[in-house]
Amino acid sequence: MKINKSIYSLALAAPFALFQSVYAGQRPNIVFFLVDDFGWTESSLSFGEETYPNNLRFKTPNMERLSQKGTMMTNAYACPVSTPTRASLMTGMNPAHMKITSFISLYKDVVPDAIGGHPGATNENFGDIFAHPEWNYNAFCPVSLEPQRETYGLNHTLYATPMVEILRDAGYHTIHVGKAHWGPAGTPGSNPYNMGFVVNIAGSSNGHPKSYLPEDNFGNLPGKGDYGSVQNMSQYYGTDVHLTEAMTREALKTLENPIRQKIPFYLYFSHYSNHTPIQRDKRYIQPYLDAGMDEGQARYASMVEGMDKSLGDVLDFLETKGVADNTIIIFYSDNGGHSVGNEKGGEPHTQNLPLREGKGSVYEGGIRVPMLFCWPGKVSAGTRINTPVSTEDMFPTILEMAGVKKYETVQKRDGRSLVKLIQKGSRYVAKAQKRGEITNQREANAIVIPEAISDIDPERGIIFHFPHQLRFEDQDDIDFMSAIRKGDWKLVYRMHTAELELYNLREDIGERNNMAVQYPEIVKEMAKELGTRLRGWDAPMPTVRATGQKVPMPDEL
Amino acid sequence: MKINKSIYSLALAAPFALFQSVYAGQRPNIVFFLVDDFGWTESSLSFGEETYPNNLRFKTPNMERLSQKGTMMTNAYACPVSTPTRASLMTGMNPAHMKITSFISLYKDVVPDAIGGHPGATNENFGDIFAHPEWNYNAFCPVSLEPQRETYGLNHTLYATPMVEILRDAGYHTIHVGKAHWGPAGTPGSNPYNMGFVVNIAGSSNGHPKSYLPEDNFGNLPGKGDYGSVQNMSQYYGTDVHLTEAMTREALKTLENPIRQKIPFYLYFSHYSNHTPIQRDKRYIQPYLDAGMDEGQARYASMVEGMDKSLGDVLDFLETKGVADNTIIIFYSDNGGHSVGNEKGGEPHTQNLPLREGKGSVYEGGIRVPMLFCWPGKVSAGTRINTPVSTEDMFPTILEMAGVKKYETVQKRDGRSLVKLIQKGSRYVAKAQKRGEITNQREANAIVIPEAISDIDPERGIIFHFPHQLRFEDQDDIDFMSAIRKGDWKLVYRMHTAELELYNLREDIGERNNMAVQYPEIVKEMAKELGTRLRGWDAPMPTVRATGQKVPMPDEL
Repeated sequence: MKINKSIYSLALAAPFALFQSVYAGQRPNIVFFLVDDFGWTESSLSFGEETYPNNLRFKTPNMERLSQKGTMMTNAYACPVSTPTRASLMTGMNPAHMKITSFISLYKDVVPDAIGGHPGATNENFGDIFAHPEWNYNAFCPVSLEPQRETYGLNHTLYATPMVEILRDAGYHTIHVGKAHWGPAGTPGSNPYNMGFVVNIAGSSNGHPKSYLPEDNFGNLPGKGDYGSVQNMSQYYGTDVHLTEAMTREALKTLENPIRQKIPFYLYFSHYSNHTPIQRDKRYIQPYLDAGMDEGQARYASMVEGMDKSLGDVLDFLETKGVADNTIIIFYSDNGGHSVGNEKGGEPHTQNLPLREGKGSVYEGGIRVPMLFCWPGKVSAGTRINTPVSTEDMFPTILEMAGVKKYETVQKRDGRSLVKLIQKGSRYVAKAQKRGEITNQREANAIVIPEAISDIDPERGIIFHFPHQLRFEDQDDIDFMSAIRKGDWKLVYRMHTAELELYNLREDIGERNNMAVQYPEIVKEMAKELGTRLRGWDAPMPTVRATGQKVPMPDEL
Repeated sequence: MKINKSIYSLALAAPFALFQSVYAGQRPNIVFFLVDDFGWTESSLSFGEETYPNNLRFKTPNMERLSQKGTMMTNAYACPVSTPTRASLMTGMNPAHMKITSFISLYKDVVPDAIGGHPGATNENFGDIFAHPEWNYNAFCPVSLEPQRETYGLNHTLYATPMVEILRDAGYHTIHVGKAHWGPAGTPGSNPYNMGFVVNIAGSSNGHPKSYLPEDNFGNLPGKGDYGSVQNMSQYYGTDVHLTEAMTREALKTLENPIRQKIPFYLYFSHYSNHTPIQRDKRYIQPYLDAGMDEGQARYASMVEGMDKSLGDVLDFLETKGVADNTIIIFYSDNGGHSVGNEKGGEPHTQNLPLREGKGSVYEGGIRVPMLFCWPGKVSAGTRINTPVSTEDMFPTILEMAGVKKYETVQKRDGRSLVKLIQKGSRYVAKAQKRGEITNQREANAIVIPEAISDIDPERGIIFHFPHQLRFEDQDDIDFMSAIRKGDWKLVYRMHTAELELYNLREDIGERNNMAVQYPEIVKEMAKELGTRLRGWDAPMPTVRATGQKVPMPDEL
């Protein structure tokens, strides 16, 4: 029997060797799997030092599977809201530098801050003590379309070179599926074809779908449509195929052609899920209801599981097609989980526990996101990397992985390539594992990869800036805040009260214990770096209504 | 000065030579430029023996320009309505064979005949003496999606191999821009990505746009949307860019990438124009109003000029990019001009004069369409080809031009390749021109290219079949008719009255002089061929309400 078995193994090995040789030396495919409003704790995979209650509420076997094939980034950051993250991915700039610091409206020239974007809200009747800053509320336009500025009458816009355009020009087959949200309707940024994508499915100015449900035609019922109606999905109207499933099927179909033609592809698979509206995925909801979750929680959990099933389908497809070994997968979320209101169940402001607050906030609940990095043969599988990384790092990372060495952008970029960190860093961690130094999550998360190895200073400052009000109603832990993280330390600037808070994230991930009084020197140093960086970018700052003066920088208090 | 000039010419010639060598031996690009509801006489280019009054009303300089670069097909036919033509282009089958004999509804399982598709119309209250036939009112689905039949609950559908899928698999970069209309919403056929297109802009189940106007957001104003709202165009909302112009800009952008990468492309540029709603193109309307046209006529003429400008932009772009010499352009319309009602001005049932009737009819006004064929270096420029050609011929023609020699389809195809006709045929005509035998349109249109040269029998029978009622109101020269053209002769079968009419198109292009009584033998012979072909395809036939019997075939009267 033993002999038979080894012959069988040999037979299996042969086609694998064939794939290896076909793809040897070929540029890798890249799948950027982006989930919307997906919190750091909202999966069955814990990115923290322990298993949190949330990790027991969700079922995401394919995230677990991916984590075993690659490395987990346990200190990955995004911006507090969607558009800044998405624009930063495209430009390699920090949102404060782009002056794209909040989500955009669906409509051109409409400021989506509480003041301009809410029905009946004006500068006069708006109760907040601050007026909103000047910022690029028409978001981002590819610089190649600047000559048509006149046609669009476009102001309050960042003109920049999109990363995907560089990838496409380097020979990548660039595919957009899902949420785009780079510019309002009426601007070139609303169209993914302008961003360098060769294929676009369902991407528009739309920031969330009017409906995930095929019986609603994804928001396209006659007379009920708006800018949130999902496009390019008409074949699924009236079927029983949920939007997440429909997008997955379409995404996989778009891969057939580049795989057949052996053209490297970049798939930006940007799920609308798990953004509001929180609607049940009927395939998965029953067990969550049976487990006693409230309706909102169960709905949300069913959406999360549907998204995870999509990830599994992508992994299966790549394996079946024999290209998994040459395909990089980056799993990421555009900001923290939603925590304002209770549409997704649970108590408001608690849904990301142990992290404080959620989407919109510069507290960890709003900005720390689940991130996975799978690069077969280059990244040590089953590892955890603790170094803080940020959205603006993706631009140089993706281009380096794609082998694009020389490129120019009109914008000055802020990010750092993570290639050494994930390659050498994951190997560094793997060695420590082999030596038996890592036996649990706490030990894994405690490892600091030295800059000499990773090329990333683990103490570098990462900046978050939200000089806006998230909703018409004041949200105390969300509105008008900035922050900087450096190593274990985090400084939070609350503009409303002109307060600076200091937290030690290693000891206090929930940001409950403000240590500003104990460590005035650290506060001063970090406030100076935050202020200097924001000033250097000429970052948007609100004005105080009473005085007409700009809110001071954190080092000017 | 002379010397300087020749040096200058030399400098210009060098880059041209470079392009030549780069593209030598490369497969040609193909642009299929399809206009909607565009009548045979509705341009400043006459396809007939003389200049008709209509030719003086329209301004289409770029059609004239293209006619000088290629050959005019003066006897080109399409089906009486849109979906059958579009499906036939994809399958190479005659509509009667496909059982797709009318236009489809936007909605799955909704029969768009007068009986099922009009509000309040039922089999009971519908006044016509015929009940509609069984036909494939869910139109066309790619055979590759047949395994998912269950998901879509799909009946009354033709499963076939799409031509574009074959092109894509042969390495063509296949681009869809504009009107698709291959299947109703809720069916796979509604999605151009299922047809083999790699890129899709604005294609859906949609058969005509809710609006061409950017101030209407092309039908996407919140709360006003329906399945006629145009997709993928949000960047132009609220600008002053007409839909025809917007689609042109997007179409040209999609060509940049395959040109750069030297991948041959197939651009199916399917304008929504000139379908209803007839809306002004403000760039062009004033001169037509000044010339005394009524409002509807002026609107329509401005739409036609806008479409022609789009054609010019395509030609300019291909020349600027240096690929014009390697790009085939086919200009075609999906059926004759609209002639029911007066939305586009003029008197109903006269807008295609001298041709009888219009869209929906098997009289020449409904089926004879303007067609131009430009193939640099292969087709003798400035020629006219008189041989009748039909929609189902496009399938083998395009694949042969693309160099795709071996392919299989699940469907049995009906068309013939036109490659020899346009290559050798146009050379045959060009020689006659050189010999001074052709001095005017009448002489050009009289030339018959022998089958020995063209591989196409100029006397072959071409079949038209419309066993439907176009609108709720009875239209005498449109509803429930079939026809066959053979050489100069055309037999028309009027099912309502069980009459057979015979016309000699060479002498009587307006089909005014029924010669059935004079030539009973020709009537008998053509009725037999029409009946035999329809029976062989098991073509849909209406039933007589009074008896429940099928309407007899033309040779069974």
